[in-house]
Amino acid sequence: MSAPRTTAVAERMGRLGTETAFAVSAEANEWRNLGHTVYPFHLGDMDLPTPENIVEAAFHAIRDGKTGYCPNAGIPELREALAADVGASHGVAYEPENVAVQPGGKPVIEKFLLTLMNPGDEVLYPSPGFPIYESQIEFLGGVGKPYGFVPGERNFLLDFEAIEAAITPRTRLLVFNNLHNPTGAESPDEEIEALAELAVKHDLFVLSDEAYWDVRYSGRSKSIASLPDMQERTVILYTFSKKFAMTGWRLGGAIGPKELIAHIATLNVNQESCTTHFIQWAGVEALTGDQSGAEQILRVLQERRDAAVELLGEIPGVTCYRPEATFYLFPDVTGLMERKGLETYDELRRAALEQTGVSFCTRLHFGRALPGEEDRYVRFAYSGISTESIREGLGRLKEWAQ
Amino acid sequence: MSAPRTTAVAERMGRLGTETAFAVSAEANEWRNLGHTVYPFHLGDMDLPTPENIVEAAFHAIRDGKTGYCPNAGIPELREALAADVGASHGVAYEPENVAVQPGGKPVIEKFLLTLMNPGDEVLYPSPGFPIYESQIEFLGGVGKPYGFVPGERNFLLDFEAIEAAITPRTRLLVFNNLHNPTGAESPDEEIEALAELAVKHDLFVLSDEAYWDVRYSGRSKSIASLPDMQERTVILYTFSKKFAMTGWRLGGAIGPKELIAHIATLNVNQESCTTHFIQWAGVEALTGDQSGAEQILRVLQERRDAAVELLGEIPGVTCYRPEATFYLFPDVTGLMERKGLETYDELRRAALEQTGVSFCTRLHFGRALPGEEDRYVRFAYSGISTESIREGLGRLKEWAQ
Repeated sequence: MSAPRTTAVAERMGRLGTETAFAVSAEANEWRNLGHTVYPFHLGDMDLPTPENIVEAAFHAIRDGKTGYCPNAGIPELREALAADVGASHGVAYEPENVAVQPGGKPVIEKFLLTLMNPGDEVLYPSPGFPIYESQIEFLGGVGKPYGFVPGERNFLLDFEAIEAAITPRTRLLVFNNLHNPTGAESPDEEIEALAELAVKHDLFVLSDEAYWDVRYSGRSKSIASLPDMQERTVILYTFSKKFAMTGWRLGGAIGPKELIAHIATLNVNQESCTTHFIQWAGVEALTGDQSGAEQILRVLQERRDAAVELLGEIPGVTCYRPEATFYLFPDVTGLMERKGLETYDELRRAALEQTGVSFCTRLHFGRALPGEEDRYVRFAYSGISTESIREGLGRLKEWAQ
Repeated sequence: MSAPRTTAVAERMGRLGTETAFAVSAEANEWRNLGHTVYPFHLGDMDLPTPENIVEAAFHAIRDGKTGYCPNAGIPELREALAADVGASHGVAYEPENVAVQPGGKPVIEKFLLTLMNPGDEVLYPSPGFPIYESQIEFLGGVGKPYGFVPGERNFLLDFEAIEAAITPRTRLLVFNNLHNPTGAESPDEEIEALAELAVKHDLFVLSDEAYWDVRYSGRSKSIASLPDMQERTVILYTFSKKFAMTGWRLGGAIGPKELIAHIATLNVNQESCTTHFIQWAGVEALTGDQSGAEQILRVLQERRDAAVELLGEIPGVTCYRPEATFYLFPDVTGLMERKGLETYDELRRAALEQTGVSFCTRLHFGRALPGEEDRYVRFAYSGISTESIREGLGRLKEWAQ
């Protein structure tokens, strides 16, 4: 009588996924604690400090008493700054009412789906991709329809045929992560245009995950939101995490049509009241203040990218693009696995960790594999490892491969 | 073709409620902007600064580089400190694995329901009560079963008969907010014991919302979690907001059985990654550091309580208990409304604002009224108004009532 039911947990919890990459972190830490050197290419986190002017703005805001609740959708100053910043970078007009501040970029995924997806609706999403898309779509009762990538000349391209073929009358939403985690892919203009046409033709709403928008070394980012007829059907996921090295601050925003943003703000009321008040003032400084901190972060990341691409290219059995955005590399390691006689991703990962100290995630950490996938890929993140350690770690990996 | 469907929003959004009290804030601000004095008794926010040692701990943590991601369930130090603090105050043993840190207390409501409530499950919740219970229960597909309060000798009591009568085979969860918003009620021991018996008998899981646990002027708080067989079926909502004047920091926790907390931590992974890293270090200082700041906050609130209770008692047609906890008063204003010839809550609220500047919420801001409710109640919060303004505002209200 007194013990609770053992089947206590709600049915939906069986559909909830997670970020399995955390298990990789745990294994790497365990290995390090045994006294081994670990080269942490598995982290999506950053080892760089938040720029000083942003830190100072947070301190100032606390001193200024910004420690009570603030409006659910964010302080007007930050909504204004985000509307102006994203409007300018996208070449479209946004107003403060188009912006709902969030505690990070991640909450935008859930709130987009809660607002627009009915149970049974089909949602196109990238796989490999950020694993929370798949998890939240299924958790919230949707039907996930993964689409993949195909190797292109300079980078991966969307498997556009697969996207088209997957659309049914029940397809309702498209998750599009241009400047892509984990591949580092970015869509050429014609790809974005074709995708936008598809969205309009099939009346799809789009979550444009632009977490890496400003993490770019050359060229210019382009958003599906800026294409004709797309602004009214696109919600942009914005985050301060990467550009300003603010991952642990938890600050982001949903930017989209006013009606949807009003609904998302009501979700804010229900879920978290508001995003930390004084951190929003730090966000205003990040967007409108001195940009030299962000520029310095980018310079460091570019140096790391250059080193990592160069060294990965020297490893037998490994081929790798040289992405101009994100801090990820997604090399094809099929040849390496053959050379080493390794069958599974987990064998590769464990062998590399134990024999070289190099720790990374594999394709399996980014959504379920698609039917017919044959080539093997792993993800190297260079956001949490110094150039020196990149050289040392990948040097060891090269020796091991030879 | 190009315009999105007008019926774009998911069906569930029609069931999402909000905190209508924000509209009261907006009206009060509007009235103030017209040049009138406003006495803000409508706020659940606090006008007191966060204690200095907690602020310093946050600064120190930022300087110390606590600006990246941290574990999804919270930093071990804060989980440890919360387990120790709540364990000691409740007289039960909690370990760090019983704690999942949250960005505020509010997220615990949603995560408790997501983890335990299947669609169609019936959930008992207080009305009047924090309006997010009702909103989230219905939004997430549950069936809300409100229970009310009855006037007791020294404070309101649970309408226990109504609770018992509302239980059916589909009843699965009970939301219990001892030290209650908006009434300021606290349950005598025998009431908590009877409720615990009911929970065990009907195999109910309990959300024990203890947001005001430490906001108490005499006596000692008691939790349903500490009664026999209850720890394994109770999730405690803990928040730093009130005790430490940290409402805008967004820091709280879910404390309960390890299996449920593990599920809640997976929801953390999916919804927000983690709670702001450096703020968790401020939380450690709040719990384990110098307590004089929290004590000072309590002294100020007690002085306000005394002033407000005294003055409300002098207003003809108003009767009010003298609660020993929370920062709310929930006077019966039935007589006042009769004297002034006011029919509806909104008429009362508007008349009081425009004729005296006194702004407050009414029973209607705390869930749907129950059948048979006849007496009229309003909520005076004294967390965001000085003793001097309490005296001035309630003095005007008294004149107006006479």
